[in-house]
Amino acid sequence: MNFEFYNPTHLIFGAGKVSKIGEVTFKYGKKALLVTGGGSVKRNGISDRVIASLKNSGVQVVECSGIEPNPRISSVRRGADIARKENCDVVIALGGGSTMDASKVIAAAVFYDGDPWDMVFHGQSNLHIPTTALPIITVPTLAATGSEMNAGAVITNEETSQKSFAQANCLYPKVAIVDPELTLSVPENHTAYGVCDLITHVTEAYFNGVDNTPIQDRFAEGVILNAMEWGLKAIENGNDLEARTQIQWASILALNGWVSAGTNGGYPVHMIEHTISAHHDITHAAGLSIINPSWMRFSAKHNPQKFTQFAERIFSLKAKNPQDLDCALKGIDQFEIFLKTTNCPTRLSELNIDGKLIKRYAQDTLQIVHDENGKLPGRPPMSEEDIIKVLTAAL
Amino acid sequence: MNFEFYNPTHLIFGAGKVSKIGEVTFKYGKKALLVTGGGSVKRNGISDRVIASLKNSGVQVVECSGIEPNPRISSVRRGADIARKENCDVVIALGGGSTMDASKVIAAAVFYDGDPWDMVFHGQSNLHIPTTALPIITVPTLAATGSEMNAGAVITNEETSQKSFAQANCLYPKVAIVDPELTLSVPENHTAYGVCDLITHVTEAYFNGVDNTPIQDRFAEGVILNAMEWGLKAIENGNDLEARTQIQWASILALNGWVSAGTNGGYPVHMIEHTISAHHDITHAAGLSIINPSWMRFSAKHNPQKFTQFAERIFSLKAKNPQDLDCALKGIDQFEIFLKTTNCPTRLSELNIDGKLIKRYAQDTLQIVHDENGKLPGRPPMSEEDIIKVLTAAL
Repeated sequence: MNFEFYNPTHLIFGAGKVSKIGEVTFKYGKKALLVTGGGSVKRNGISDRVIASLKNSGVQVVECSGIEPNPRISSVRRGADIARKENCDVVIALGGGSTMDASKVIAAAVFYDGDPWDMVFHGQSNLHIPTTALPIITVPTLAATGSEMNAGAVITNEETSQKSFAQANCLYPKVAIVDPELTLSVPENHTAYGVCDLITHVTEAYFNGVDNTPIQDRFAEGVILNAMEWGLKAIENGNDLEARTQIQWASILALNGWVSAGTNGGYPVHMIEHTISAHHDITHAAGLSIINPSWMRFSAKHNPQKFTQFAERIFSLKAKNPQDLDCALKGIDQFEIFLKTTNCPTRLSELNIDGKLIKRYAQDTLQIVHDENGKLPGRPPMSEEDIIKVLTAAL
Repeated sequence: MNFEFYNPTHLIFGAGKVSKIGEVTFKYGKKALLVTGGGSVKRNGISDRVIASLKNSGVQVVECSGIEPNPRISSVRRGADIARKENCDVVIALGGGSTMDASKVIAAAVFYDGDPWDMVFHGQSNLHIPTTALPIITVPTLAATGSEMNAGAVITNEETSQKSFAQANCLYPKVAIVDPELTLSVPENHTAYGVCDLITHVTEAYFNGVDNTPIQDRFAEGVILNAMEWGLKAIENGNDLEARTQIQWASILALNGWVSAGTNGGYPVHMIEHTISAHHDITHAAGLSIINPSWMRFSAKHNPQKFTQFAERIFSLKAKNPQDLDCALKGIDQFEIFLKTTNCPTRLSELNIDGKLIKRYAQDTLQIVHDENGKLPGRPPMSEEDIIKVLTAAL
């Protein structure tokens, strides 16, 4: 194990905590850019509560609404323009992963004279990693991406059909106010997508990481087991605050670095999915739910021990030996059954995506990120043919 | 779950990483107070390597050696005097928990005109929680307290026979350089004490916390299982770098807040042990090893479900039902057997401590900390009689 860890986000977690937004924000700025998504926070009144709390604490509010589910670089440009013009000194993200991701890049774009797309990694020579950003405060309304407590952001360039990530220490939110009550109104399908999203974050680190990380393995398994158990409860009954609380906590842990610290793996399933959703504007987690089991079957042959452990510890299957590929594959089958139980799709055809552009998806993915051998980082590293194989199996 | 989490320490982890100390320190200061313990870092050459790295990077070094195993407030005063007189602008702790704890309070004492003992919680009306400290860099030479990545410090007042903790955000180390190679020379008994110390940190949060923290439970169990497995390997063969690495990582996780976040429990075993070691200057972990099993037997009756889970998940015992006190007690027996296997003491008599002062220990503990009913916080809260009972059972 050889790694660095740094995450300075101050987490405030618990039902009802959204009422602290005014008091918390006032410590960082007096004029907030309030970034929101498609309008649900306006319809359900959360936005009004947040604005009232901010105004009560003496914080002025400038709104930037309409961030898309796969947030676009044009929205980032628009948000940064508003923040600059209005002299905002703090950015509040109120919404799901898309809203939070866009907010992070907006907060950094305010200090960057070039095009914000330069800050998103896509193999370019003029990559700009930001070092300064306005203070960011995240208030998630969905248990899914964990963006509220990390320094990453995924942005789509709608002109080039590219989707990739920005990452920099200045993108860590100063504060994450995580109030599970805000997620009670999330509909069944998006609840399920969130559960699938968070589990995929964990499986990426778990299966792509280095060997000999037994404590991280236990952490990952703990998050997966609980996300599955409480995820089903939250899907079944959206008003189950205990279930909402547990999956919200799981979603934070899945991507705040605690589970992945020291595993040093790649995120191949995410990178492939980003290409698919850049082309088809599908829900990120729906893409993950389709690609992940197919990728697992591909990867298991190269890493049977970890997949056997997964089958044993997550699904209580009995392995004949520590590298029992048969048992490992049965574990993947069980995982796919779980995804189906949540009504997440597991085949591209369910989203009306056919195989015509499969080669293009593979090429685009490798254009965004590849190792020195031209392969997609992961365990194992994937060639264009490997990606095509995984996607073909998921048709 | 209702909690806040904040831990901004930048962790640099891995074999060989101590060589970065000069480069890292230079970012924070140009004249370092190098705090060390009893001399082992001088004898084994680690101190020379650190000083050479600092000087190569242009950092001047002022030494403050001789921090005791139960670090004394007089040593804190001495260190702060040196730092002030020499105008040090950064504090480096090179040693075990005692050295790190003393360093933290020294770093804050530099900015406080009163007596540093005011910063240590002991029920006083003039408690001073510091808000400013010199930048602190920790370089642990022992896997035990996890002090390298948290904001706590335990200090003994040798004049009043009191031992208690300071805690403040400004005490978070800026950087923790954690190099498991530095622990290869730790003797067998102190390796065992470290393992016992870290496991006790985890059990305190696990058994004293609120209900319904299933992910935290899995995290705690993951740390305990691995600390036991790799701890025995490190005790058996001190040169096993893999085992040293795993217990070092476990020791960090045991007290950096990741396992305990949201559990909101007390630390009764620690509070009782502090009183014993304040009176008898015993090794902290030896005291924990004696008190913890006795406290567990007392607590299990009040919390049979969690102790049953412990027996099942840590020792693979089969419970008849989720609140099987018999199974729970067998799990505690197994845990005590593990402690004996590591050669940690499990009875006060092994340290030549008899029962004469037992009432005094209980009273002193409650004087340091008690709830509104005069009881020691924990699950269950403990009266003077309860503490006496636990200690009597441990004679």
